[in-house]
Amino acid sequence: MPKKIVIISPGRDCTPWIRALKKEEPNLIVEVYPDDTNREDTDFILTWNPPKNVFENYPNLKVIASMGAGIRHILKENKIPKQAEITKMDDPLLKEDMSYFVLTTALNFLRNIPLYFQQQNDKIWERLAYQRPEEINIGIMGFGNIGVKVGELLVKNKFNVRGWSKSKKSHQHIETFAGDKELTNFLEGSNILVCLLPLTDETEGILSKEIFQQLPKGAYLINVGRGPHLIEEDLKNALKNERLSGAALDVFQEEPLPKDHWFWNHKKIQLTPHTASVTDPESISSQVIENLNRLKKGEELLHVVSLKKGY
Amino acid sequence: MPKKIVIISPGRDCTPWIRALKKEEPNLIVEVYPDDTNREDTDFILTWNPPKNVFENYPNLKVIASMGAGIRHILKENKIPKQAEITKMDDPLLKEDMSYFVLTTALNFLRNIPLYFQQQNDKIWERLAYQRPEEINIGIMGFGNIGVKVGELLVKNKFNVRGWSKSKKSHQHIETFAGDKELTNFLEGSNILVCLLPLTDETEGILSKEIFQQLPKGAYLINVGRGPHLIEEDLKNALKNERLSGAALDVFQEEPLPKDHWFWNHKKIQLTPHTASVTDPESISSQVIENLNRLKKGEELLHVVSLKKGY
Repeated sequence: MPKKIVIISPGRDCTPWIRALKKEEPNLIVEVYPDDTNREDTDFILTWNPPKNVFENYPNLKVIASMGAGIRHILKENKIPKQAEITKMDDPLLKEDMSYFVLTTALNFLRNIPLYFQQQNDKIWERLAYQRPEEINIGIMGFGNIGVKVGELLVKNKFNVRGWSKSKKSHQHIETFAGDKELTNFLEGSNILVCLLPLTDETEGILSKEIFQQLPKGAYLINVGRGPHLIEEDLKNALKNERLSGAALDVFQEEPLPKDHWFWNHKKIQLTPHTASVTDPESISSQVIENLNRLKKGEELLHVVSLKKGY
Repeated sequence: MPKKIVIISPGRDCTPWIRALKKEEPNLIVEVYPDDTNREDTDFILTWNPPKNVFENYPNLKVIASMGAGIRHILKENKIPKQAEITKMDDPLLKEDMSYFVLTTALNFLRNIPLYFQQQNDKIWERLAYQRPEEINIGIMGFGNIGVKVGELLVKNKFNVRGWSKSKKSHQHIETFAGDKELTNFLEGSNILVCLLPLTDETEGILSKEIFQQLPKGAYLINVGRGPHLIEEDLKNALKNERLSGAALDVFQEEPLPKDHWFWNHKKIQLTPHTASVTDPESISSQVIENLNRLKKGEELLHVVSLKKGY
């Protein structure tokens, strides 16, 4: 079979990806769905948001590579062919960018920056008491390779960090919690809650009333996971009854966020347009090529996803 | 003479200071101007913004202690009695708070947070390219004990930091520049310029056209020094001709900033109400008492200001 990669990513300008892949491997054939040819010769697909049942067209598919860290977009409307493996990206720059975004957002909460923007709008001069990182417990839900990196940058800046994950992890500077049993303990001490979970059937809707109720009064939510993690009505109520003092949301059920959504106008919500970390093809195309070469040599692939766990 | 401190700080609620000083030294007499008594018995004054010629009422004054890091408010409308020394505060928490404020503000610039707040207001979903700390040179004007601390936190977060001061300093991780001769070199490489200078006759109006012209196009200004450092019309022009892409201002010529000032409505200006760091009497009253005790024992005072340099 030829050394070929087919990109399936409807609505995306694929030029940066093609350029980055060819820079890495000049002889590579790169084709973009639906204009790709000889589908029986295709064993390697690079994709984000593939259309329904698209993989059925590729009888010899071996690798479905997600363009990002998540893979639920692949499972949502597609059956995975038996002989195919799914891989995800492990982008060091993505982890770094995510870490700085969470740090920025947490510091803004401590220093009342969203309130000061509103005060400026209203021409109000009023000093508000600020908090210091060492006075804050920040809880990271989803303590995988991204969560750990985010936590470490926060520790470096004197925050007290705690991480929660499905199965127990340990870390020298970060207190860890695992599973349903330790969730209450984890939540009760978190003045800021950061969602970095993978999106799975289990984690969908996890940011709900049940969780918010267990946080200290006035806690702040940062959702940089996925939109469907959050039950929006529960957030609305938690802001109303002041269980939460505010929320920074970077991800949404529907993106772009519809113009008539109540998030836009809510004074206690800070919106950003899914910009916490943006995958840079330049920084990860070597990973894609590495896996393509491993496939050709019959070697074990990197960053393979467990379909059972879903991440 | 009795162990007494007179506080002169018109318009300020002095209760937190009195409480903090008495906690440190229960037998201390604390009186507040203009209701203080036996002025010939007063050798130690703690002050912010003293009224014109007020020190003339204290024939035996030995120490004028500023409540903050700056002392110009003392010199502005008062002659300093020959036998008196001026001291300033060296508040570790103040340095820490200032550092985090500058970090927060710099990160917000990198991640376009002020623009996203405006986009949210206008219900606009548009991703903007972000920058990483390691791509940024941040120049600190005023590389004294606060500036060094601010620089070190920025270095820890991967910014490239450079410091400029009147006389040459050296630092392991920070490139240093000094005096008029090295000012151009310092400015040419600064994508973000932070003003942390003391306010003196020499530094008043230093943030001017001449400085802005030497910065890289699109640089960002953070003024956490004093309002009179900035020539406001020059800032307006630098924003208009895009020499500067924006400015975060925490200090102003007149505070509170008057309602009709053009800063309030300018889209490229982010205002905060002098909140970068707020002196906490609890954290520094021990310094005041220490100097009072040194005075009584005839020992050398701490944090004495050079009247010649003005800081």
